[in-house]
Amino acid sequence: MDGIKVIEIKKSIFADNDKDADALRRELRQKGVYLLNVMSSPGSGKTTTLIQTINRLKDKLRIAVMEADIDGDVDAVKIREATGIPSIQLHTGGMCHLDAEMTRQGLDNLALGEADLVILENVGNLVCPAEFDTGSCRNAMILSVPEGHDKPLKYPLMFSVCDVVVINKMDVLPYFDFDMEKCREYIHMRNPRAQVIPICARTGEGVDVFAEWLLQEVNNWKKQ
Amino acid sequence: MDGIKVIEIKKSIFADNDKDADALRRELRQKGVYLLNVMSSPGSGKTTTLIQTINRLKDKLRIAVMEADIDGDVDAVKIREATGIPSIQLHTGGMCHLDAEMTRQGLDNLALGEADLVILENVGNLVCPAEFDTGSCRNAMILSVPEGHDKPLKYPLMFSVCDVVVINKMDVLPYFDFDMEKCREYIHMRNPRAQVIPICARTGEGVDVFAEWLLQEVNNWKKQ
Repeated sequence: MDGIKVIEIKKSIFADNDKDADALRRELRQKGVYLLNVMSSPGSGKTTTLIQTINRLKDKLRIAVMEADIDGDVDAVKIREATGIPSIQLHTGGMCHLDAEMTRQGLDNLALGEADLVILENVGNLVCPAEFDTGSCRNAMILSVPEGHDKPLKYPLMFSVCDVVVINKMDVLPYFDFDMEKCREYIHMRNPRAQVIPICARTGEGVDVFAEWLLQEVNNWKKQ
Repeated sequence: MDGIKVIEIKKSIFADNDKDADALRRELRQKGVYLLNVMSSPGSGKTTTLIQTINRLKDKLRIAVMEADIDGDVDAVKIREATGIPSIQLHTGGMCHLDAEMTRQGLDNLALGEADLVILENVGNLVCPAEFDTGSCRNAMILSVPEGHDKPLKYPLMFSVCDVVVINKMDVLPYFDFDMEKCREYIHMRNPRAQVIPICARTGEGVDVFAEWLLQEVNNWKKQ
């Protein structure tokens, strides 16, 4: 296997981001490509969750992944090795989020004609990425049990903009003071329509539910 | 007990931040006040660690706490109830970090003549807070076991600017793929002088070591 493609993303102008994001979504619609923006704290298990999800969907959908990170290409390599799908690394040059123009710079390096689903793994951060529409069709976030059920109270915007919240590391629930019912309640305070899907990416438990949600989303997007 | 004081922090100009931070440090030196800036991901256990640490030091030092959060006053209330020390909440208005001027706005609301040690609990975020010198005497960060030992590879700047890294949630080590030796190695790649202190804030294990480090720091600062 040859080296991972690493894209150095350049900073874009914030003012027009909402317009850029809408334009990008229209383009994706025309091309029949569904873009999922995945956000979380550092260490919530984004990459492992994506690997498990992709391995359940790669025979049904043509998938590509963009891994955003401040530095390195560890995650892009890991995704490609574990799933065999095209994966590129976006370097944000120290920036704490991606916006629509930066996302477009990444998409320009993928063969969009050969993809049904592109997954963008955003920078691990519960604050800044929530403020910038990437042009994605949907936002997903991964909250892991060790982080605590109070996160929707502390990071309101993140939970407001997400359509689905995956609760990861359910296998360690017995060792943490994490109240699943309170967590659901707090998430729905921020976004009453958010889907909440408990999983364990390490064992694969619950990932079928998330994969099924995503498959339906992509199929609906292509049909419309 | 009366209500927690909540300060709405205003945005300041970035350009002069390094100068502002140095000026603030000089002022703190003159006043004999040691400011510790504590950073981490969301959910790493900052507040619990601070409560355990403060309860070990409050008979030896006069301590005050500033809790920075996007919203709410949960942490400031929790600190005050569990330790009895003065605690104020700084609202960042959605901002993802604190800089020196914002830190000063917080300090203006504390009785600095009655404090040896002020602890600033920064916004839960491994990216942006690392970029802004708050004017603190030292930076500490808390990394929790569930986040993984690879974080110094992914968030290089955060680990470069921290003088001490507390590894929290050591009690759940058996349930996670966390390699303590690799973690130490990666931290020292970023900052060879960083102290690494494993603790469990929930049980209090190891907190004595961190409290002792902090006590010496404050005493040295006041002596110089």
